[in-house]
Amino acid sequence: MKKACIVSIGNELLSGQTVDTNASWLAARLFEKGVLTAGVWQVPDEKERIVKAIQDASQQGELIVVTGGLGPTDDDLTRNAVAAYLGVELEFHDEILRAMNDFFEKRGKTMAPKNRSQAYFPTGAAILDNPIGTAPGFWARKKDIDIVVMPGVPAEMKQMFTDHVLPFLEQSLSTARVVCRKLRCLGAGESEIAQKLGNLMERGRNPLINCTCGSGDIIMHINATAEDEKTAIQMIDDDKTAIRECLGEWVYGEDDQSLPDVVADLLKKHHKTMVTAESCTGGLLSQMLTEIPGSSEYLLAGWVTYSNEAKIRLLGVPEKLIADFGAVSAPVAQSMATQAAQRSGADIAVAITGIAGPGGGTDEKPVGLVYISVFIDGDCKVAEHRFPAVNRHWVRMRSALAALNHIRLRLQV
Amino acid sequence: MKKACIVSIGNELLSGQTVDTNASWLAARLFEKGVLTAGVWQVPDEKERIVKAIQDASQQGELIVVTGGLGPTDDDLTRNAVAAYLGVELEFHDEILRAMNDFFEKRGKTMAPKNRSQAYFPTGAAILDNPIGTAPGFWARKKDIDIVVMPGVPAEMKQMFTDHVLPFLEQSLSTARVVCRKLRCLGAGESEIAQKLGNLMERGRNPLINCTCGSGDIIMHINATAEDEKTAIQMIDDDKTAIRECLGEWVYGEDDQSLPDVVADLLKKHHKTMVTAESCTGGLLSQMLTEIPGSSEYLLAGWVTYSNEAKIRLLGVPEKLIADFGAVSAPVAQSMATQAAQRSGADIAVAITGIAGPGGGTDEKPVGLVYISVFIDGDCKVAEHRFPAVNRHWVRMRSALAALNHIRLRLQV
Repeated sequence: MKKACIVSIGNELLSGQTVDTNASWLAARLFEKGVLTAGVWQVPDEKERIVKAIQDASQQGELIVVTGGLGPTDDDLTRNAVAAYLGVELEFHDEILRAMNDFFEKRGKTMAPKNRSQAYFPTGAAILDNPIGTAPGFWARKKDIDIVVMPGVPAEMKQMFTDHVLPFLEQSLSTARVVCRKLRCLGAGESEIAQKLGNLMERGRNPLINCTCGSGDIIMHINATAEDEKTAIQMIDDDKTAIRECLGEWVYGEDDQSLPDVVADLLKKHHKTMVTAESCTGGLLSQMLTEIPGSSEYLLAGWVTYSNEAKIRLLGVPEKLIADFGAVSAPVAQSMATQAAQRSGADIAVAITGIAGPGGGTDEKPVGLVYISVFIDGDCKVAEHRFPAVNRHWVRMRSALAALNHIRLRLQV
Repeated sequence: MKKACIVSIGNELLSGQTVDTNASWLAARLFEKGVLTAGVWQVPDEKERIVKAIQDASQQGELIVVTGGLGPTDDDLTRNAVAAYLGVELEFHDEILRAMNDFFEKRGKTMAPKNRSQAYFPTGAAILDNPIGTAPGFWARKKDIDIVVMPGVPAEMKQMFTDHVLPFLEQSLSTARVVCRKLRCLGAGESEIAQKLGNLMERGRNPLINCTCGSGDIIMHINATAEDEKTAIQMIDDDKTAIRECLGEWVYGEDDQSLPDVVADLLKKHHKTMVTAESCTGGLLSQMLTEIPGSSEYLLAGWVTYSNEAKIRLLGVPEKLIADFGAVSAPVAQSMATQAAQRSGADIAVAITGIAGPGGGTDEKPVGLVYISVFIDGDCKVAEHRFPAVNRHWVRMRSALAALNHIRLRLQV
């Protein structure tokens, strides 16, 4: 199996100001393609240290992936260090300078003179374009070692890796393949799921099944190793069936499908339109749904009725209902959903009202108490949730996910 | 200044399944005590590789912090590797085995035979107890190098570091202290800022100023080294003044203050209430504002008027305005803000309408074109933005941040 090494460059990594998420993202992508990462080196913005790390890395792997230090400022020394490792000079690329000029001009800005340094590359390196930033990457070779250098900005690095490195890996793969797939669950905790799965999660088993916590959901990673991709995929498919049998409706999706994606697909499949009425989540639910391209097809509108007055004036929740039961109550949640449906004419309306904290909780209505009402074609249901009061962000996230899960379970039937 | 190196051990780091948050946590704690981390090595559970990483680390720092590989299973090889580096044998500690037995018995469990391996330590090492787990750590010395070995489980590592390593650092600290502060900027790119700051960002300067990209904003890190903390803080304060003079209103906040935090403080200071009317951001702006505890004090309500019909029916935007100028236009943005203010009675209304992509763009109105209107006490302004069409998430994030920045600039005057 081919081996890779990762070199992450930047003082901010070594002062603890930035967590090196690039390295683990890269290691995971490489692993999916059957390339094992033999080591990660995090080094400061110092030329000698970068050169040394690349030299050490070249003893452990045939592919060296370097990120960071390609910016326009004086502490960006990766170009110089890689050139020194390769034993070549830096070469100025006029066409790259022109492209950078265009990048700024299109945005109505003038390029700063400092950006000029980004048009220098080690002689002989192939330039990797950066469609979303100014710093291009590059690819060089020394004996049997491929060295690919990318910006440290995660979005730019990911795009460049996907465009340029993945196709290369697919061409040069060895026969033994590792294939990874995921199943995504909501509604049970990690240990509850592990208990249900029993032997399926045994160490040393192939496929190897791991369980990680997402943001409110649980992700099952299924890693199969086989002589060829087809066999590995078949092994995974068998495991998926077994897991789905154990976990039932807890499984909501596969691989990188998010819960909003799953709900969006269901809304489109059933030709349903939808509106939201949010109190404690303050727009989080509508934000999650509109993050998906094409969401205008089903999401008509949303109300953030954070104050009691907004619930009364904007949505038409009866004042007496709030006075009698409180804003965080099942009747108010139902009224919010029903009113939102009537005012918009949508097929589905979802209302969330709860106590996100840290303040505002009482013995009777503690932080984490959330009512979610889902109105579908005239049928309005409400559910009470008592989420752990981990923190405000957590309660809001769990509330929005629970609301989406209610829609999923009702539309999936 | 004393230097440290971090060695993180574990196959799960190199398959991308676990992000090495230990390393950045350790680097941040060390940095706070004036100890710079010279490098991080992530290596697999292989004895030779662990030995090599420790050898390389010992060339760069006087304190080597090793985490991981202290568990009871066969792939836990850190003890053996450190003993090999030190040139000593492993030694069995009966009192540790008894303590582990107690640990399990107290929890009503029987210790597995495999745990016995955790009672072996390099001869001469000092044992560091682990009050919350089974694996003790240890501390050894070779010539001038201190090497401290801790479990990889973050909670156990943090406890052990706090109990045993911090007191050591405080004793053996050189007088030199490093203090680190941040300034947060919006409105200009990295190179534009570096250009303006000129010599302030010179390498080797003290304080050392670094620049990193946040999510849409730019963060300036100011690191000062001095004989004592007071002097370092004074140096940072001087630099802050100099940077603020250079960058003017681009600087929106300090340290861990987010832009929503700054705007929330301004709203409270000026006793202003606010509503939002969002099209392309779909609730992101109201979600960001309501993430802050106590936001009900100023945020009254929000509309997500994603469809034209919602803009017309819910907000009362004149149909003709949309027909004449299009939903993504300055007049529609202004109408959304004005209507939202009138309907709610809020002092401030912010409206966002734009093309977040990936579809929906034209030559005339490309993806990334966003109109933001801010109504404050009867005065309604509108701004046109042309954000790089990186992706949908990016355009939405930049739009919400720009809207917050408009409020900030108008309230700060």
